[in-house]
Amino acid sequence: MVAFLSARDIARIVGEVGARRFWRRLVDYLRQDFARWDVFEKSPRYANHSPRGVIELMPTSDADAFAFKFVNGHPGNTQFNLQTVVAFGAMADVTTGYPTLIADMTLATAFRTGATSALAAAHLARSDSKVMALIGLGAQSEFQACAFNAVLGVDRLRVFDVDPEAIDKFERNMADFGLTIVRCADARSAAFGADIVTTITADKKLATILTDDMVAPGVHINAVGGDCPGKTELARELLLRSEIFVEYAPQTRIEGEIQQLDPEHPVTELREVLAGRRPGRSSSEAITIFDSVGFAVEDFSMLRLLRDLAWETGVGRKIDLLAEPANPKDLFSLLHPLDAEQEDIATLIKAGQAA
Amino acid sequence: MVAFLSARDIARIVGEVGARRFWRRLVDYLRQDFARWDVFEKSPRYANHSPRGVIELMPTSDADAFAFKFVNGHPGNTQFNLQTVVAFGAMADVTTGYPTLIADMTLATAFRTGATSALAAAHLARSDSKVMALIGLGAQSEFQACAFNAVLGVDRLRVFDVDPEAIDKFERNMADFGLTIVRCADARSAAFGADIVTTITADKKLATILTDDMVAPGVHINAVGGDCPGKTELARELLLRSEIFVEYAPQTRIEGEIQQLDPEHPVTELREVLAGRRPGRSSSEAITIFDSVGFAVEDFSMLRLLRDLAWETGVGRKIDLLAEPANPKDLFSLLHPLDAEQEDIATLIKAGQAA
Repeated sequence: MVAFLSARDIARIVGEVGARRFWRRLVDYLRQDFARWDVFEKSPRYANHSPRGVIELMPTSDADAFAFKFVNGHPGNTQFNLQTVVAFGAMADVTTGYPTLIADMTLATAFRTGATSALAAAHLARSDSKVMALIGLGAQSEFQACAFNAVLGVDRLRVFDVDPEAIDKFERNMADFGLTIVRCADARSAAFGADIVTTITADKKLATILTDDMVAPGVHINAVGGDCPGKTELARELLLRSEIFVEYAPQTRIEGEIQQLDPEHPVTELREVLAGRRPGRSSSEAITIFDSVGFAVEDFSMLRLLRDLAWETGVGRKIDLLAEPANPKDLFSLLHPLDAEQEDIATLIKAGQAA
Repeated sequence: MVAFLSARDIARIVGEVGARRFWRRLVDYLRQDFARWDVFEKSPRYANHSPRGVIELMPTSDADAFAFKFVNGHPGNTQFNLQTVVAFGAMADVTTGYPTLIADMTLATAFRTGATSALAAAHLARSDSKVMALIGLGAQSEFQACAFNAVLGVDRLRVFDVDPEAIDKFERNMADFGLTIVRCADARSAAFGADIVTTITADKKLATILTDDMVAPGVHINAVGGDCPGKTELARELLLRSEIFVEYAPQTRIEGEIQQLDPEHPVTELREVLAGRRPGRSSSEAITIFDSVGFAVEDFSMLRLLRDLAWETGVGRKIDLLAEPANPKDLFSLLHPLDAEQEDIATLIKAGQAA
């Protein structure tokens, strides 16, 4: 039997553990896995492109566990009242090859993205950062807000979205979290006075959400929305005067904001900062950018945490995802009735075979 | 919600449809998909190798559906009373990217391998073939016997395995199928007088199950066990005097019996024979070999049939594999209670967040 966690189960786990503890533990797991980055088998994602979108498989593994995520991206889905991105993931035991966990990853991807952003900001933003601009109030925005609140203590938000309904939804969802939320007229107004600016918009194009003149010295930019070729959010001039940090340079040069820059432009991998091998921000006046695109190792950390928390909390179910004959060499026995209470499948089979 | 089929559900479907009809319909689906081979997006499997085994992801897709299989291969698992190979698969809608089916593929892989063998033999074996040698009586052997019986009317088997318990198991499982089964002392004896010889042994090495002198003119060889680099079953001399048919030459030259031959050695792809573009066996005296390694398109056919039969029979369950918020732009709402009867998760979250 394989453990199964639905989105509802994951919500229940978060409730049982406590959201603040959940976020901090997720950040710990991410920090551990970034620190041992070299042990992971990394490979390009497998992508199936069609006119309406993309379906991807993102695998990675360490010496003990193999994990992968199935995830799509279909921008036109909203017209059918469907989500643009859904995902599920699985983890397997490298020693036996048996799957151990299968879980929704739609909710989990929002969690791991928020936690990775907060982990980066904990090392890159000025330590006195309390005000965050949040530009783009889509499906993942509340997760960013919660992660920065739980991990960094950010309690003042300056928010903007082109869609007023998205702002209403965000305010409704955040109503009881004790945050001060200021609705702003545009991105420029939102960024004004912010210590941290998070851009997390959804347009599939080379957009300029932040221009160079909108960002003051000392700001940390958490650039989440630009995450595939042809999709960016920051002005090139802004990148050129900033210190840029990435998850994995070869992938980010293709998918991130830095696709706009020379392929040799210097960037620092976050894991080097976490390990103390490279400095984070150089001064309180520097502008730092975390150019986030999302990497399979982050999904690995998330699945590892879910596996551990399912065990600790007892939340979740077992499902019979795999054939498990009593004698492992006798797969065919599954076509026989195993006891008197089951339907007489073998009789049915024989009747069909004879027909 | 996503349809879920366990191995037990698949057994139930086979029982409801009737085994003979199930096999024939599976062969039809395989024939259709081999005929439109060029529409499938084909790529190398993703393989994660470890000291104990391999874990693979095998994706493929047509214009409507994307499918993949997770499958392992861990020869040492038998010492822990585990199967050496387990698998599960999923199918998704290319238009929306949403998964539609997730299913056990351990049982299903045995079905699709048997059906592909029978499909090939229906086009390559002499039409009067009634006697099959079956060498190797492991987990998949009964499925080969049933497929050849249902599709070709093969009703006499000459069987051999190095493990007497495997022979006992095979005879027990096949007891009521109306087949004549002859236990043979060795592979040579089993092959003697057979119209079709199926080799389906499990040793991970360059073995020689069949030598050149064991095979008479006119025989069709269904070579299933040799399916990865370093694992073969047939003598090179036997290959050299036979007409060789494969699923997909670039993959089979790496994984199949023909890894023993010059990379330019002529082989025919089965789909060319099915389409009538290339001849099958050249005469009743020729030796034909189907050098089977298994290809993602066959798993696609199997998942497509399971999807259709789950719909037709009503067998299977729906599982909440994916987060499905009422408003697709409001993922965070899943962390709120949706109605009064649910646990007050949001209250728990807020309590945790405040703690």
